[in-house]
Amino acid sequence: MLPEPISRELCQKLDAADPLSAFRGRFQAPQKDTIFLDANSMGAMPATVPDRLASFCTDAWVELRRQGWNHFEWMERPYQIGQSIAHLMGAQPDDVIACDNTTVNLYKLLTYAWRVRSSGNVILSEDGNFPTDLYVAQGLPNALVGEPTIKICNSRDELIDRIDANTAVIYLSHVDYRTSARWNMADICQRAKEVGALTVWDLSHSTGAIPVDLMGSDADFAIGCGYKYLSGGPGGAAYLWVNPRHADAAWPTICGWMGHENVFAFATQYAPHTGAWRHATGTPAVIANEVFSCAADIWRDVDATLLWDKHKQLGNLLIDTLEQECAALGVTINTPRNYDERGGHIGFSHEGAGPLCEALLDAGVVGSFRKPNALRFGLGALYLSYENIWETVERLKHILNTESWRQAKYQKVSV
Amino acid sequence: MLPEPISRELCQKLDAADPLSAFRGRFQAPQKDTIFLDANSMGAMPATVPDRLASFCTDAWVELRRQGWNHFEWMERPYQIGQSIAHLMGAQPDDVIACDNTTVNLYKLLTYAWRVRSSGNVILSEDGNFPTDLYVAQGLPNALVGEPTIKICNSRDELIDRIDANTAVIYLSHVDYRTSARWNMADICQRAKEVGALTVWDLSHSTGAIPVDLMGSDADFAIGCGYKYLSGGPGGAAYLWVNPRHADAAWPTICGWMGHENVFAFATQYAPHTGAWRHATGTPAVIANEVFSCAADIWRDVDATLLWDKHKQLGNLLIDTLEQECAALGVTINTPRNYDERGGHIGFSHEGAGPLCEALLDAGVVGSFRKPNALRFGLGALYLSYENIWETVERLKHILNTESWRQAKYQKVSV
Repeated sequence: MLPEPISRELCQKLDAADPLSAFRGRFQAPQKDTIFLDANSMGAMPATVPDRLASFCTDAWVELRRQGWNHFEWMERPYQIGQSIAHLMGAQPDDVIACDNTTVNLYKLLTYAWRVRSSGNVILSEDGNFPTDLYVAQGLPNALVGEPTIKICNSRDELIDRIDANTAVIYLSHVDYRTSARWNMADICQRAKEVGALTVWDLSHSTGAIPVDLMGSDADFAIGCGYKYLSGGPGGAAYLWVNPRHADAAWPTICGWMGHENVFAFATQYAPHTGAWRHATGTPAVIANEVFSCAADIWRDVDATLLWDKHKQLGNLLIDTLEQECAALGVTINTPRNYDERGGHIGFSHEGAGPLCEALLDAGVVGSFRKPNALRFGLGALYLSYENIWETVERLKHILNTESWRQAKYQKVSV
Repeated sequence: MLPEPISRELCQKLDAADPLSAFRGRFQAPQKDTIFLDANSMGAMPATVPDRLASFCTDAWVELRRQGWNHFEWMERPYQIGQSIAHLMGAQPDDVIACDNTTVNLYKLLTYAWRVRSSGNVILSEDGNFPTDLYVAQGLPNALVGEPTIKICNSRDELIDRIDANTAVIYLSHVDYRTSARWNMADICQRAKEVGALTVWDLSHSTGAIPVDLMGSDADFAIGCGYKYLSGGPGGAAYLWVNPRHADAAWPTICGWMGHENVFAFATQYAPHTGAWRHATGTPAVIANEVFSCAADIWRDVDATLLWDKHKQLGNLLIDTLEQECAALGVTINTPRNYDERGGHIGFSHEGAGPLCEALLDAGVVGSFRKPNALRFGLGALYLSYENIWETVERLKHILNTESWRQAKYQKVSV
């Protein structure tokens, strides 16, 4: 709790002292008076994107076409983007690449982890893992050598209890996409190591928001979404990371020409690139990567410690302001209050959260609704101000006080 | 051979009678006087792309962000694009989806074909298959159940000879990316069927250029590149096709949430969508798909028979004009003269083809060079005119006559 009652003036003071405030200007603000609290779904657009795309269309595509493969950085973008975001996850620059989507990267690294495992035959996960993560695992026994057993636990306690000598791979979302509950990565990695198991982490709801320390935690593999907290653009490339100790252990599962040691040799025989880059597959998503590059230009300039600290302060402020202003109106925080136990978004419960979410949208506050009664606010620390938090809660309070959100029109759209 | 000597005037007459001439205006012409003969590498940009991207940036991304998942067609694009290009390959509209890149789609369908095979343990291919196709196959024994044997033949005759009861899958590029040699798809499918084998086709150098009839040939699976003849944009989504008889035979190899029967149920348990759509993986490439959609808008309006006929006439004209104007200057056609045996591009040999390719670029003719002495011209039939072909050969002839291409500056850049 802050030392004085929270007010707009206090938030303005916090903004005036914000060492990251200059970054707000590097993202495109909406014309409407909208506050986007949707970084868990879609990060803000870097301000350079429109010009980059315009010049791409005319200079790179229309005028140069296939020469673009040589004249521009099309082929290097996956590595440049990886290098630009690696510090946000405690990784070395060359161990991260931006490629494919999250699901495909999950498949590539989970199968790779299975193949380079030291022992065990069980892949252990929990039902709080994002659905596509679970689906990827469930599909493995149909195709993968070695007869993996997939065990999806119903609770975190159960998962910890089940870690034993039969465990080959522990496969988790670092932060739960619903509850924002964060795993203690270092603890799980330690438990895994004690039984000879490997860890695969989905960082989609972590990287760019909260501290991630892959090397310090001695994790084995990680992947994540590029378009949430990282602002890589709708449907932009995901990323993957491989601990250097595994990087040259085996061929990738999907052997493609972008993972070849010499891409443009057009050799008949596959030979893997050294390191994590072997997990690149086919032609990079050139246009999409131009967009993600605009975000990478920003991330290169970001001190991760300052980012994490601001995200923490924004989250604490949001929790405290919701409690101060709206607790009496039925708002109950439903994500961890303890900072070390939560991820990128703050959530709360309120009856009729569906219609409430729609009423907030009408009032220019973009959050996301989850059945039956939960709302999530994902915090993009580079472009949100402390005053945005105050204003968000003011609008919520106004809606709750006027009861306008119970109107039929909101009921209709939130089934 | 045309009935009279080829001339600019004859080409202009052909243009005047071209039933597809109106499509030229639907692609963005370069400002420079450049003739792009690079459809085998990068198709022309649909004229609607810049406006579509501009409105995407402001309306869809900046103003609506995560609401875009609901308000726009982001999630439906993969299927809309598939429906728009299906007629170019003799497929039913709902059996094609645009997703991932070519390499990932190859992996998905080659492993699926292996898993639903009726007999045999050999995956048969040839070294004329594109490198990434070969690499995908070479990687399979490391990870895939059932111990596939990968046999890469050195010639087409050898491949045909090797088709026998041990053959599980025949896996080919319909058109060779170097020689433009076309396989007789129906013949190979028939030979496969006789031994109980399945076929997987890479259509990257076929679809949008020459006739493809997947259903008529009774093929089993196909994939292809979206950014070559289809103008889907640099690094845009690839596509895949599954014969309906296999579509519900098994779970996909990569089980992802976009292939779930109910994407937004966020169920814990995977259940495949019906049909080809189960092979969608993760979040679609939203921005890239906006670009591809602009091309799909065009393809929906294209009569495939007219397209194929124009492509054939352009190819014949290019061969005949090269022979009429440049045979005495050392130009030798090196792709099949017989139309039924060739694909999307026409190639020729000339000593010093590397420097020659650079000199052509300087003269505004974009082709591609392959060591040691080959040049390729990929023909985009919707945006090339017959006069473009004449002009191309005129520029080539001028270069060859003046010998300017032997200058040191061209030697240097074409190692």
